[in-house]
Parts: sequence; C-alpha cells; structure tokens
Amino acid sequence: MTHPFPHRYHATLTWEGASRAALSSGSRPVLVGGPPPEFGGEPGWWSPEHLLLSAANLCLMTTYQALVKRAGWEIAGYRSEAEGILDKTREGLVLTRIVLRVAIQVAAERVEEARKILETAKKYCIVSNSLQRPVEVEGTVSSVEPVR
Amino acid sequence: MTHPFPHRYHATLTWEGASRAALSSGSRPVLVGGPPPEFGGEPGWWSPEHLLLSAANLCLMTTYQALVKRAGWEIAGYRSEAEGILDKTREGLVLTRIVLRVAIQVAAERVEEARKILETAKKYCIVSNSLQRPVEVEGTVSSVEPVR
Repeated sequence: MTHPFPHRYHATLTWEGASRAALSSGSRPVLVGGPPPEFGGEPGWWSPEHLLLSAANLCLMTTYQALVKRAGWEIAGYRSEAEGILDKTREGLVLTRIVLRVAIQVAAERVEEARKILETAKKYCIVSNSLQRPVEVEGTVSSVEPVR
Repeated sequence: MTHPFPHRYHATLTWEGASRAALSSGSRPVLVGGPPPEFGGEPGWWSPEHLLLSAANLCLMTTYQALVKRAGWEIAGYRSEAEGILDKTREGLVLTRIVLRVAIQVAAERVEEARKILETAKKYCIVSNSLQRPVEVEGTVSSVEPVR
C-alpha cells in the first residue's frame, strides 16, 4: 500500500509581494500564505502557525484511520481542535504548547479499543514526532447507536 | 504591530469519511486534507507532510520579510523549494531531513545584507525552532537591475 522508503516530499513557495506568498505542491490547490493577523497579516491567509497546527491535526487523524483500517472496522465520527500557544521565552518566541482536542465517535462495543488506538496513533504520528515539545492529545471517545 | 503574548492559534479538523478531512481555521479557505499518495491518499489532498513543509517554507519567508521591512528596504523576488525526506529509522518513520532551497533577488547593493538577513531569519523562524532536527537552508541571493 505504501511506497518504498525513503519518501521525498516537495512544496514550493512563490513570493507575491509584501508578506504574501503562494504555496503550492503538485496538483494540490494553491494556498495564499502569509503571517497571521497577530503579526500583521490578513485573517484569510494560511499562516505558518495555522499550517503547523493543521499538519499536527491531520497527522493524528490519518495515523488513527490507518490503524482503524488495519483493525478492520470503521469510526462514525472524528473531529479535532488544535490549539497552539506562542509565547516569549528565554530562547525567544516559542510554540510552548500544542494541544489536540479530539472527539471520536464509534459503535458502543468499540469504545475501549478506540481509546487504545488513539494512544497508539499519538505514538506513531510523524508530525508530532518531528516536534521538539510533545504534542498533547486530549481525547474523548463516545458511542453512537448503530444504524439499523 | 504585533499582538501581546501569549498568542493562541486555532485550527479545526472535521473528518469527511475514509481518510479525508476538512481543515479549517476562521475565515481561511477550507482545505481538503488526507494522507499523501505515498500512503494511499489522493494527489490533490494537502497532506500532513506537505502542510509541514509549507509551514517551514512560509515561516522562513515571513520572518525574512519582517527583518527586511525593519531594515527599511524591499526585495525584488523570493522563491523557496522545500524538500522533506521521510525514512525508516530505529525510532520508526522519521522526517530525517527538511531542506529549504531559497532563491532571493535584491538590488545589487543589498546582496551582502540580504545574505546576512537570511542567516538571521533562519535563527528566528518559529516553525524551524519547533522542530527536533535542524531545518537546512540553502540560500542563493542574486542581484537585479533596478527599475528606472
């Protein structure tokens, strides 16, 4: 299913004047990037901070889904809110915390297993493992009634 | 110009079935996210790996632009190609290298200063500083004829 290692991933940035840039990668839709409003950018621009949080959010989900698929069942819902805190420290401006608040819905008989898989996914997430400080995961798993 | 610290950034992921998710954050355009083709995803999806590379690319540029703005001049061009290498290691799958190949164009009399600013930008980039392994920056600064 997966390609042989090592994988090589590519992304391109093209400056578009002032602090705005086009972010592209193959056939993916081009994003308008720039600093967040907190650093003088526009609220509609994807910023480095928001891209990093989205990478962490998505990495946990795709890892989770790969594990669930391997286990041979399906989830009913998954939502995750990422929060990143940027603060002044002695080492300068640092993302002191990244927290992912995950809400997963599964069939009643899968709740326990779904919790365990979240722990495993956290351990194998490539983006989290690339970061200096541990990404905190706060997960809630709830059960849904099966569709009859 | 900047907001008081700490800053709090937020991003949301909503699962859309299989390994696909909607990535959103305030008024930013919603992205379709999922694993990259190397892990069975679609080539048009923004993946965790591509988002992380774009975050690193954009962070260096916005930091660079903030420094140039503070210095009181302007660049003529900026392009950056990010490459990430994912490999199997004893610690599992790891992004063993992230390289940013940056090409900057400035007026002839700014070439030396532009090179120094790239070194400074590298040092202050928040995304790079959040990563475990150092982001490598290969920069070329060239001069352009001033527009008369």
